[in-house]
Amino acid sequence: MTGEPIRTDVTIVGAGPCGLFAVFELGLLDLKCHLVDILDRPGGQCAELYPEKPIYDIPAVPVCTGQELTDQLMEQIKPFDPVFHFSQMAEKLERTDDGWRLTTDLGTVIESKVVVIAAGGGSFVPKKPPIKGIEAYEGQGDGSGVYYAVRRMEQFRGKRLVIAGGGDSALDWTVNLQPLAQSLTLVHRRDEFRAAPDTVNKMRALVAAGQMNLEIAQIGGLEGRDGRLEAVILKDRDGERRLECDALLAFYGLTMKLGPVAEFGLNLHENLIPVDTEKFETSTPGIFAIGDINWYPGKLKLILSGFHEAALMAQAAVRIVHPDRKIRFQYTTSSSDLQQKLGVA
Amino acid sequence: MTGEPIRTDVTIVGAGPCGLFAVFELGLLDLKCHLVDILDRPGGQCAELYPEKPIYDIPAVPVCTGQELTDQLMEQIKPFDPVFHFSQMAEKLERTDDGWRLTTDLGTVIESKVVVIAAGGGSFVPKKPPIKGIEAYEGQGDGSGVYYAVRRMEQFRGKRLVIAGGGDSALDWTVNLQPLAQSLTLVHRRDEFRAAPDTVNKMRALVAAGQMNLEIAQIGGLEGRDGRLEAVILKDRDGERRLECDALLAFYGLTMKLGPVAEFGLNLHENLIPVDTEKFETSTPGIFAIGDINWYPGKLKLILSGFHEAALMAQAAVRIVHPDRKIRFQYTTSSSDLQQKLGVA
Repeated sequence: MTGEPIRTDVTIVGAGPCGLFAVFELGLLDLKCHLVDILDRPGGQCAELYPEKPIYDIPAVPVCTGQELTDQLMEQIKPFDPVFHFSQMAEKLERTDDGWRLTTDLGTVIESKVVVIAAGGGSFVPKKPPIKGIEAYEGQGDGSGVYYAVRRMEQFRGKRLVIAGGGDSALDWTVNLQPLAQSLTLVHRRDEFRAAPDTVNKMRALVAAGQMNLEIAQIGGLEGRDGRLEAVILKDRDGERRLECDALLAFYGLTMKLGPVAEFGLNLHENLIPVDTEKFETSTPGIFAIGDINWYPGKLKLILSGFHEAALMAQAAVRIVHPDRKIRFQYTTSSSDLQQKLGVA
Repeated sequence: MTGEPIRTDVTIVGAGPCGLFAVFELGLLDLKCHLVDILDRPGGQCAELYPEKPIYDIPAVPVCTGQELTDQLMEQIKPFDPVFHFSQMAEKLERTDDGWRLTTDLGTVIESKVVVIAAGGGSFVPKKPPIKGIEAYEGQGDGSGVYYAVRRMEQFRGKRLVIAGGGDSALDWTVNLQPLAQSLTLVHRRDEFRAAPDTVNKMRALVAAGQMNLEIAQIGGLEGRDGRLEAVILKDRDGERRLECDALLAFYGLTMKLGPVAEFGLNLHENLIPVDTEKFETSTPGIFAIGDINWYPGKLKLILSGFHEAALMAQAAVRIVHPDRKIRFQYTTSSSDLQQKLGVA
C-alpha cells in the first residue's frame, strides 16, 4: 500500500501551532512543505485538548481559544499552500541519497532534504484499559480481538461486539456499529455518559427496543484461546460474569505518546529531542526539532518559543535545500518581494 | 534635579514590543516593572517608524500595523500595571548593594535587582545638520544657540528664531513658537513640505500675514562669538546671505543611536550586547538584554524572537528577585492562579 514518493522541500511531522508557523517561515524563503499529523485536522493539542479554552499568553493576542489560534495560523500560511496528510502517523524515517524519506502508517511516502519534527508531546494514541494480557488479542484486523479505533466498519459485520467506554467515541461507534453487528453490548462503569446527549438518547432507545445491551460494570479480564478472543469478564459489586464476544472495542480516551519518532535515531533525552539554539537542528544534520518536543538549556514549553524556533530553523533549512542560493534576510514590513509572496503587494 | 529613588522589581530600558511583552512574562511571575523610553509613548520603532505600515510576520496575527501591535500589547499587559517613564534617556547604570540604580537624563532614579535592556537599535536621537562647528553652539539651554528638540517652549520667548526642516516637527514648532518669538524664520531647501497639510497651511497664512518668514535655502554655516550664536548663513543658487538670530532649531528627523547603553559596561560586540540563549543574560549578572539589541548565534532581529527571549529571561529574573521562592512553571490556559493575575478567573 506504499505509493509513489512525493518530492518536496521540507517534510513537517506535526500540524500543531509550531508546525503551522514553520510553513510560514519556510514559505517566506520559498520552501514548500508537506505536513503529516495523526489527527484529522490542523491544530495539534490546541485543537484536540483545548479548542474552546482561552489562551492568554500568545504575544499581541490578549485572548484566543485553541481553535481561534489554529484558524489564525491557517489563514496566515494560506499563501504558501501547504499540503496536509492527516489521520496518519509518521512511522519510518530513512536516509536517501540527498535527504530523507518519511513513510506513514497509511503508506504515504514523502522525500525531502529537510525534515522538521514539530510533534509536540508526540502522537495522540488511545489509552489502553488496564486489563492483564490484553496485548495478546490486539491487531487481528479481521473483526475479532481487541481494537482501540475503527478504521473499517465492514470488518465488524455479523460479529458479537463489546464496546467499552462512556465518551463520544464509545457512544458514536455503538450507534454506528449496532446495525452491522450480530449483537452489541456497551459496557460502562456507571450509568452516566460524557457523550453528546443526542447520541446517548439514541443508545438508550436501542436498549429499550432490545437491539443492544447496556451493562454497568467494569471489564475485569479477557478469555480466549490461541490468541482468539472468546469472552470478556464483567465485574460489578455483585461479582463477575462472562460475556461471550468476538471483539472488544475499547474507547478510553487519547493519551500522548512519543511514538515512532523515538525510533528516528535522534538521541532522545527523557523523550525530548536535544537541539542547538542556533538552528534548532538535532544531532542528525537535516533533521530539525521545534516546539514542545525539543530540549535545550532554558527550554520552556510555550507556543511562542516554538514560533521563534521555527524562524531560526527556516534560515538553516533554506541553506540545506538551496546550498548555492544567496540568502538575504528581509522583513515583511519593508520587502515588496516578501509581500508579493504573501499576496499583499 | 535627581529625585528620590523608585524601588521596583525590574527596570526595563525600552518600551518597544519586546519591553512591553517582558512586562507580561514578568507579571505572570509577580514581578513589577518600570520602563524608561526616549520616545513619548510606547511602541518603540513600531510606533515611531511604521505606525501605519502593515506587519505580516507576528505569529497568529496575519496582518497588523505597528500601532495595532503596540495597542494589543498594551491591552495584554494592562493587568500588571507597569509604570512608564517616557521622553527620557536611560543615562547611567550603577551597581548598588543589592542590584542596580538607573538614572535618566530627566533625573528619574530607579533601583531594582534586575535590569532588562530592550532598547532595540538604541535611542532615537535627532539627526544633526552637516554644519561645520555646530557643536560649539549646542546645549546653552537659555533659548540661544542650537537645539534639536524643544523641551521648554518658554525659553524661546522674545528670541529671534530660525527653524530648519520640512517635516512635522519643523512645521509644528514653527506654528507653536511663532506667537512667543520676537521673530521667526523657517528655512527649508525646497518649497514643499512633508508635514500635515493643515499645519503647512497655517504656516503659509502666517507668512502671508507678515508674522514670520519662509526662506527656501540651505544652511551653509553659523556665525557667532565666544560660543554665542549670532547668525546663520543661508545658501541658495543666488549665493549666500546672513540671517541674524539668537537660536537655530534644526529638525532633520530622528536616527537610531546606541547612546548611553554603550557605557553600561556590557561587553558590546558591534553595537550589540552578547547574551546566552538560556536566560538572555548579559556578561553582567542581573542585567538581561532582549530584542534587536542582543546577539547570540543564529540571532534574527524579529519581534517574535524578542517575545521568546522575554519569556526565558523572566524565568531567570524571578530567581534573582526572589531567590528563596519556589517557582512552578504554569500555563495561562490551565492555571487559575495565572488567570486571577490576568483578571479573567
